[in-house]
Amino acid sequence: MSGRMRQVITLLTDFGTRDYFVASMKGVILSINPDAVVIDITHDVPSFNVLKAAFILWATYRYYPRGTVHVAVVDPGVGTSRRALAIRSRNYYFIGPDNGVLTMAAEDDGVVEVREISNRSVMLGEVSSTFHGRDIFAPAAAHIGLIRFEDYGPLVRDYVKLTMPEPRLEGGVIKAQVVYVDKFGNVFTSIRRGMFNIGYGDLLAVNVKGRLIRLRVNRSYGYVNRGEALALFNSMNFLELAVNGGSFAEEYGLSEGDQVEVAVVH
Amino acid sequence: MSGRMRQVITLLTDFGTRDYFVASMKGVILSINPDAVVIDITHDVPSFNVLKAAFILWATYRYYPRGTVHVAVVDPGVGTSRRALAIRSRNYYFIGPDNGVLTMAAEDDGVVEVREISNRSVMLGEVSSTFHGRDIFAPAAAHIGLIRFEDYGPLVRDYVKLTMPEPRLEGGVIKAQVVYVDKFGNVFTSIRRGMFNIGYGDLLAVNVKGRLIRLRVNRSYGYVNRGEALALFNSMNFLELAVNGGSFAEEYGLSEGDQVEVAVVH
Amino acid sequence: MSGRMRQVITLLTDFGTRDYFVASMKGVILSINPDAVVIDITHDVPSFNVLKAAFILWATYRYYPRGTVHVAVVDPGVGTSRRALAIRSRNYYFIGPDNGVLTMAAEDDGVVEVREISNRSVMLGEVSSTFHGRDIFAPAAAHIGLIRFEDYGPLVRDYVKLTMPEPRLEGGVIKAQVVYVDKFGNVFTSIRRGMFNIGYGDLLAVNVKGRLIRLRVNRSYGYVNRGEALALFNSMNFLELAVNGGSFAEEYGLSEGDQVEVAVVH
Repeated sequence: MSGRMRQVITLLTDFGTRDYFVASMKGVILSINPDAVVIDITHDVPSFNVLKAAFILWATYRYYPRGTVHVAVVDPGVGTSRRALAIRSRNYYFIGPDNGVLTMAAEDDGVVEVREISNRSVMLGEVSSTFHGRDIFAPAAAHIGLIRFEDYGPLVRDYVKLTMPEPRLEGGVIKAQVVYVDKFGNVFTSIRRGMFNIGYGDLLAVNVKGRLIRLRVNRSYGYVNRGEALALFNSMNFLELAVNGGSFAEEYGLSEGDQVEVAVVH
Repeated sequence: MSGRMRQVITLLTDFGTRDYFVASMKGVILSINPDAVVIDITHDVPSFNVLKAAFILWATYRYYPRGTVHVAVVDPGVGTSRRALAIRSRNYYFIGPDNGVLTMAAEDDGVVEVREISNRSVMLGEVSSTFHGRDIFAPAAAHIGLIRFEDYGPLVRDYVKLTMPEPRLEGGVIKAQVVYVDKFGNVFTSIRRGMFNIGYGDLLAVNVKGRLIRLRVNRSYGYVNRGEALALFNSMNFLELAVNGGSFAEEYGLSEGDQVEVAVVH
Repeated sequence: MSGRMRQVITLLTDFGTRDYFVASMKGVILSINPDAVVIDITHDVPSFNVLKAAFILWATYRYYPRGTVHVAVVDPGVGTSRRALAIRSRNYYFIGPDNGVLTMAAEDDGVVEVREISNRSVMLGEVSSTFHGRDIFAPAAAHIGLIRFEDYGPLVRDYVKLTMPEPRLEGGVIKAQVVYVDKFGNVFTSIRRGMFNIGYGDLLAVNVKGRLIRLRVNRSYGYVNRGEALALFNSMNFLELAVNGGSFAEEYGLSEGDQVEVAVVH
């Protein structure tokens, strides 16, 4: 041990878990830093969906110990001229491609310093052009704390940023967007707690693809009957449309990016 | 390090692995106890299936080191008045909602003490009403060994218990239930080794949804031809119906909860 | 801690992650060696597909720290007379059934010594006939470093070997095989870098199930338009057929084991 930290390194990819991809990254990390603790955020991001990965990282990063290294690799531009980034934010490190996957989280925490990873000594000896997760990002992440941050490479100021879509009020109706659908089929709208005058017990009129439904804002699923729809402010403070014991997304045919309109009936 | 234990904490949920849920729980745990070793039991329990989760926990808990904390969160009642429990059994700790998900395992090990988790200092500062896995159960689990067990909250005596269904003998026929179907389509019946006079080599007449089939009790799958059905006592000592290299459940249309009748032909 | 190594142990199975199987193996390992670091390679190998598991292990093992124990359990012959093996190669240990799942990797690293695991003291007290992953392979793996290697059991010289299929040149055409299809639908052919005179920029004529297509050998996916097909040498140095942002396997109906013919047009 010799005083070395149990450095926490998280991994978030669209690689799935059925191939050799993720496990190779873990092997590379443990070969460089045997005391690293590697944690999976998820590897089930839909292929190439940078925005969804950015959202999940944003929702998760803050619960990790200070100094955690978050690696996110959803990387349709692998092997092209898109840059590899190492970001130092107020409390964390972020490693991944320069396509916005890191920055929704990093900007939220407060970006301090962004470097292009160009130092060959933090990469594997041989770098493939299709698997930078294994050959660049994993070894670069494992080097956090072992090299000075400035040694990753030159400063970057024009990195790609992704932002959360904002709802807007138009003639008393909130025009919002579906920002996330979770495993249960719960639908996160872009309306966040405090943005509008919506509170517990309010009755909402929601226009879902031309279909008008009325939902009461409840505290949790179990306050309505099984199979009944409701609205609530969820664990990330989004106004969520849900069905107790069921899938709102399936029942109403909603996907990420879809529009919904919400009016408060009170 | 300072002599702190590498506390093993297991997680079992119906959250899936595609969202931010499980990873948030792990971050919370590592933030409170950086030396914790967090292990996934599974997160692929069908949504809201408390009984299946209870079975999996029961089948797994006993293989873990003494003192392991088992966290199980299949929690359709999250945010309602259902209680959060911390259970101390003879060899383990169990953390989760009071809906029976913990007690099949805990009762099997021998329950010593059950507490309602009401102490706000073992929870996150802000507690959402829809994600107690992250805000209550994970931090409560991470506090095992850091606080006295009685400090979780008041004693509970009337916690929810789930029990394994028992087969019964009626006129020479065993009326049994499908208690579990695994990934391979192997069907676990509620008949356990030693309950009836069934042994290796016995010929069984099994009534599967009105279809009568004859199965020999073998030692393992490879003793019959590929594609052939058989019976065996499996790794948890259930009488299992299987197809070598195939899926009995699919071939015979069986699901958990279905009835099967078994007679020994000898 | 007391100077004990944080022994890395990897697990590769076809058990899936929805049952109690994998988690039981991890519990057994941690009960024997509390300082072990257990890493999943994958558990999503298609049921009984020994060859696919062997390929994944071969592609992954080399990225792990020296001394890592790799456990692979795809084991249609569990409980029959097939042997349980402990293999020592130049840099690693391999534990699993004697059906070839271990040997593509072990032979690649250089086999030093193969033992049949017959010593009951490295197994669980009770050994089921259907779950040797939990009862034999996990505990045997956890004993690496705790017993002498020769104490696993007698030497084995006639263990099962699986080999990678080799392409062959016939009348100017390379007759190759699909050796792997990954999560993205990228198709790995048996043609490896350096085998033939194929380089960046070459134009290939590929016969896919009677359909003739022309593919340029590129460096990475992003060098062609979204939805366009290409060829490249991938991260394991196989000639890969891919679609940028899509699935070649799906679009052209290819699966592992299928034949493809490749000619260089230059």
